Amino acid sequence: MKKEALKALFDQMTIEEKIGQTVQLAAPFFEENEQEITGPLNDMGITKESLWQAGSALGISGAEKTRKVQQDYLQHSRLGIPMLLMADVIHGFRTIFPIPLGLGATWNPELIKESAAIAAKEAAVSGLHVTFSPMVDLVRDARWGRVLESTGEDKYLNQQYARAFVEGYQGKDLKEDFSKVAACIKHFAGYGAPIAGRDYNTVEMTERTLREQYLPAYKEGIDAGAKLVMTSFNTIDGIPATGNQKLMRNLLREEMGFDGILISDWGAIGELVPHGVAEDLREAAKLAMKAGVDIEMMSPAYGKELQQVMEEDQQYAQLLDEAVWRILVLKNDLGLFEDPYRGADEAAEQAEIFNGKNREKAREIAEKAMVLLENDGTLPLKKEQKILIVGPKKDSRDLLGAWSWQGQQEETTTLMEAMSEKIRNENILSIEDETDLYNGLNSFHIAQIHEADVILVVLGESSEMSGEAASRSNIRLPENQLALLRELKKLNKKIVVTVFNGRPLDLTEVSNSANAMIEAWFPGTEGAAALVNTLYGEANPSGKLSMSFPRNVGQVPIFYNQDSTGRPLKEDAMSEKYFSRYLDVENTPLYPFGHGLSYTTFNFSKLFLSDNRLTKEDTLTVTVEVTNSGERKGVETVQLYIRDKVARVVRPVKELIGFKQVTLEPQETQAVTFTINEHQLAYTHTDYSVSSDAGEFEVMIGPNSSELQAASFSLEK
Amino acid sequence: MKKEALKALFDQMTIEEKIGQTVQLAAPFFEENEQEITGPLNDMGITKESLWQAGSALGISGAEKTRKVQQDYLQHSRLGIPMLLMADVIHGFRTIFPIPLGLGATWNPELIKESAAIAAKEAAVSGLHVTFSPMVDLVRDARWGRVLESTGEDKYLNQQYARAFVEGYQGKDLKEDFSKVAACIKHFAGYGAPIAGRDYNTVEMTERTLREQYLPAYKEGIDAGAKLVMTSFNTIDGIPATGNQKLMRNLLREEMGFDGILISDWGAIGELVPHGVAEDLREAAKLAMKAGVDIEMMSPAYGKELQQVMEEDQQYAQLLDEAVWRILVLKNDLGLFEDPYRGADEAAEQAEIFNGKNREKAREIAEKAMVLLENDGTLPLKKEQKILIVGPKKDSRDLLGAWSWQGQQEETTTLMEAMSEKIRNENILSIEDETDLYNGLNSFHIAQIHEADVILVVLGESSEMSGEAASRSNIRLPENQLALLRELKKLNKKIVVTVFNGRPLDLTEVSNSANAMIEAWFPGTEGAAALVNTLYGEANPSGKLSMSFPRNVGQVPIFYNQDSTGRPLKEDAMSEKYFSRYLDVENTPLYPFGHGLSYTTFNFSKLFLSDNRLTKEDTLTVTVEVTNSGERKGVETVQLYIRDKVARVVRPVKELIGFKQVTLEPQETQAVTFTINEHQLAYTHTDYSVSSDAGEFEVMIGPNSSELQAASFSLEK
Repeated sequence: MKKEALKALFDQMTIEEKIGQTVQLAAPFFEENEQEITGPLNDMGITKESLWQAGSALGISGAEKTRKVQQDYLQHSRLGIPMLLMADVIHGFRTIFPIPLGLGATWNPELIKESAAIAAKEAAVSGLHVTFSPMVDLVRDARWGRVLESTGEDKYLNQQYARAFVEGYQGKDLKEDFSKVAACIKHFAGYGAPIAGRDYNTVEMTERTLREQYLPAYKEGIDAGAKLVMTSFNTIDGIPATGNQKLMRNLLREEMGFDGILISDWGAIGELVPHGVAEDLREAAKLAMKAGVDIEMMSPAYGKELQQVMEEDQQYAQLLDEAVWRILVLKNDLGLFEDPYRGADEAAEQAEIFNGKNREKAREIAEKAMVLLENDGTLPLKKEQKILIVGPKKDSRDLLGAWSWQGQQEETTTLMEAMSEKIRNENILSIEDETDLYNGLNSFHIAQIHEADVILVVLGESSEMSGEAASRSNIRLPENQLALLRELKKLNKKIVVTVFNGRPLDLTEVSNSANAMIEAWFPGTEGAAALVNTLYGEANPSGKLSMSFPRNVGQVPIFYNQDSTGRPLKEDAMSEKYFSRYLDVENTPLYPFGHGLSYTTFNFSKLFLSDNRLTKEDTLTVTVEVTNSGERKGVETVQLYIRDKVARVVRPVKELIGFKQVTLEPQETQAVTFTINEHQLAYTHTDYSVSSDAGEFEVMIGPNSSELQAASFSLEK
Repeated sequence: MKKEALKALFDQMTIEEKIGQTVQLAAPFFEENEQEITGPLNDMGITKESLWQAGSALGISGAEKTRKVQQDYLQHSRLGIPMLLMADVIHGFRTIFPIPLGLGATWNPELIKESAAIAAKEAAVSGLHVTFSPMVDLVRDARWGRVLESTGEDKYLNQQYARAFVEGYQGKDLKEDFSKVAACIKHFAGYGAPIAGRDYNTVEMTERTLREQYLPAYKEGIDAGAKLVMTSFNTIDGIPATGNQKLMRNLLREEMGFDGILISDWGAIGELVPHGVAEDLREAAKLAMKAGVDIEMMSPAYGKELQQVMEEDQQYAQLLDEAVWRILVLKNDLGLFEDPYRGADEAAEQAEIFNGKNREKAREIAEKAMVLLENDGTLPLKKEQKILIVGPKKDSRDLLGAWSWQGQQEETTTLMEAMSEKIRNENILSIEDETDLYNGLNSFHIAQIHEADVILVVLGESSEMSGEAASRSNIRLPENQLALLRELKKLNKKIVVTVFNGRPLDLTEVSNSANAMIEAWFPGTEGAAALVNTLYGEANPSGKLSMSFPRNVGQVPIFYNQDSTGRPLKEDAMSEKYFSRYLDVENTPLYPFGHGLSYTTFNFSKLFLSDNRLTKEDTLTVTVEVTNSGERKGVETVQLYIRDKVARVVRPVKELIGFKQVTLEPQETQAVTFTINEHQLAYTHTDYSVSSDAGEFEVMIGPNSSELQAASFSLEK
């Protein structure tokens, strides 16, 4: 529809119709639409009539169902404005990819883009128009359950992923390409930093830190064209994001240039009341309107109160018009006025959803997400070895992780099943009833275990242990799993541990017991097959952590790009006292940001800077030679960090500003070159201006954030 | 000296002499003054001549020694400007009081004032002029080692203590009363909030939080007349405090009205270099001068560089003049021009230091600092009971805690010694060699223990485990102590645990094993006697925690006055998911802020508000009747909290705004009344203005921050 026609349509809308557009209701409302309005709808202030005014719905899928809902809806729509259908398609629709924290470990934005494109296509043929993804919240606290939905602790890496997700979901033109869906950047802003890692808790940070560390990934997603942004549940400087005019009007819209739809998180407008900044829903509606929230998800403030608000104060009419116009624009951008059913197509569902190609990609990505944390040479396993498989996750289909709505556990294979497909049964040993194991091994167990060459211990969290509202104060594996490992350790067998989980765990004790350890995350639909391929070396691990793994929860929050202190701990001074340190644990994490081993080894040499000076106009190249010094083909991620040695504001001890993946045959050497320009050296000052300072910079390159070679240059101005 | 004379003196000073005034050196420099200048002095850029220019010294004490140093100094001083002598007199000079965190648990500012007055007198007769106390940093993180030097997590309570300390140290007139010393408020600002509790680490908070929660105690100390303020090691919004012009010039001096001396913490100007905001010491000196740091403690920036700085840029001459003038003013305020030896007096030392009266007061305060955490009636002990005393701290003299410089461990008694003084020997049982105990009890032990009526387990930290640079990621008692307790628990005896320590510990496991538990802190010189008095009921405990004790380190930071969230956990909804909570632990601490039991019981009843409306002009009274419902005389601290139900900024779920201690005979009832005015309801807005909002307030009264009775009123404007 042309803009003029859209405007003409808009001009015909009544206040009631306009308000309706700002209301989003969840699937059950529509499924119950033939029944009497009694319970929940009534609580929400929804009548049968107003239900059909709601401009969007959440969580409806399936071509048949979405077509039916849209058809019914249009029959009730005086002006024929179609409904927007949205849902949480987070790491795949039905073909489930690794959780975002696992995707983050690929260090491969192109793969993330491919996963998002597959998720979009599966969602689109099912009739969805918008996904509430990507979550680009930066996270430094492993206790926070929703860390699983994040790509990690680094702003630069998160930026690359934010863009990849958006491009993968949205493609080039949503109107032309019905296999795409609109993306929603969330949660604006700072949701990943609740105090003490407790979900929905207060966020405490300076605006400078917000701008410097947290905003860039949102900005990148917006610049990549994301059509929506979602508000966060937390406060920013004491004001809940959903009612925060400064954050939303000044920062998001004016400064960051976002002109799409701002949608509240689930119930978040209503939550302005318990937050204590609104006396009632009417005040909550006003605050959210003033902040520029266009769509209210699942709280009744707009639907119940906006009419009255409008009557009390005409300024809100203008705000409502702006919101409704943005909603109509998105509907038009999606081509819904031309085809309200858009991609929804049962035949396409059959062809596209969970097809072999998608699953193949899910397996490839799961392999590339796995992180080899430790290995003394026990991995890869050999097919002729006898492997005893134990642990509570070995027969588990709970490999999808939270936020896998349409994913079907029964469509996953267990690790045992995946092993059986690959390995001769005589080489797979197991213990009939593992329950006893946890109380200590008996002689029968010991005899069984004695036959094995390697014990494969399959540990992890259940999917309910991470995700929204799943914060943990204890980030170790469940105690019975650690007890099992202690028992097994006594047998002096080679132990390989694989971990399925949704957060950086405290793996200190596991690491002391394991000869090799693979962080497998919740790896998705094809996770078990991917893990077996990895265990046997058919896939050579290349994943790198996008978050620091602490030595214990008492180190949290711990992150690699911490600011310089005035008393930095020297590595050779653990016996000295007056440094910034703990008495009882090292300052370093157990596994640093960027860490991940391979079945081959890589050497970094000949770090070379093209010049020792940089000016604002030119660029500098930094080159390092990477050699595959082992005997297998492998992929290394070459990481580039920078340190601004003297600045006006204390700067991080290092910051990632680039990375490249290289695939090397055994003994192959490749020169990897990065270009550095002045722009990359800029940072946020206390007045929020962004600029660089002349002076010395250290440039560091290596395979992770702690094993780095360094050189220096100076920026001249 | 009159101001005019001081000004005339000032006008005669050379640049070198002026710079000298800004330099503070530690005791060893003066002790080595007859030797050749080779090592440390040379590193600091100090020559024999410039040593005698230093305007102040740190850590010298003893009337004889201080008189000698002052005498030597004046012989080298062209203008006869005496030297200032400063030291860390933190919780007593030689008579050591409980650590400040224990003092905080008294909820008795008058007692704190008395302790400070005694410390001042002992320090003054020893020749000191300034103490680096009080530390009024608000602390919410138990990992931070220096929490021991804080009075806790609450701004209001910290304010009362800040004033009490300053008034106790300084008295009414330092010039008239040579038994007083100048106080130094530290550490400005926000030092108590390092990320992850690691000392000297970055502080991350909004300016609004800084103003609302952290600044009030500093302000109160300054308003009470503190002569000095010390800079903190941390950054505020990315700028190290010691070089932070906005913090020091704008906030501290202009806005908070501080016109005394700003002194750096130890080496903190030099640390601007490793912080990465100064290229070298010269730049560091400039930043600190611009920020208005008058005295540099123990780094060589001013001494080495100011001369050159001055030659390069004349603006610094003015800044130097301001600094030097403030230093001269303090020297004059202390009466040093009239009597450079001031209170230093060997006879007075004999009479005043560690005398019976002081020790008596130390015992009284130690008793009032102890917190009865748990009691099922096992306490108080009876003299006729047979008590088995075990645990690594039972024979320990390590009861003074960190920052007890002049305190002498050999002058303390151990708990065993204190017991022996009070109890017939046949009723004190012990185990000859406790070493074995930790590996499990043998039958000999069990037989011995069998004779006991009660087992008294004396646990705790060593004093090195808390204090500066003594952060811990694990805040439980040492593992062998917990193992001992587990063994003892098996015997089904009554167990009383006492804990000597310097931080809120995770006492969850201890609490599950103990019939009664006393938090004794590092109780000081008379700590063991005080503890025995408490154990036997001669002192009835009245201490109340000034910090929340977490259930585990994964809850940290945890504090009672957390902001309202949008999804507050309802107490009856632990099984529901989408609230701000952890999966594995309650949101509440193990022991809440304000908690502390007594050997008697108190009932709170008849909460009464004089009106349900308050205007800006009038006041409201809130009254509660407190009844001693037990059989012993006791002291209860009645605590008044407020909640602003709807505000422009999210407010805490409760905030302490008043407290009163009442002493009640058995069955006695007393009405306790508080007055509330509009001023107490004001808070810091996002534009940093401070005002209240009209609307509903909840007022809560009770014996701690969690057991509260509530009523409501509305503020009308």
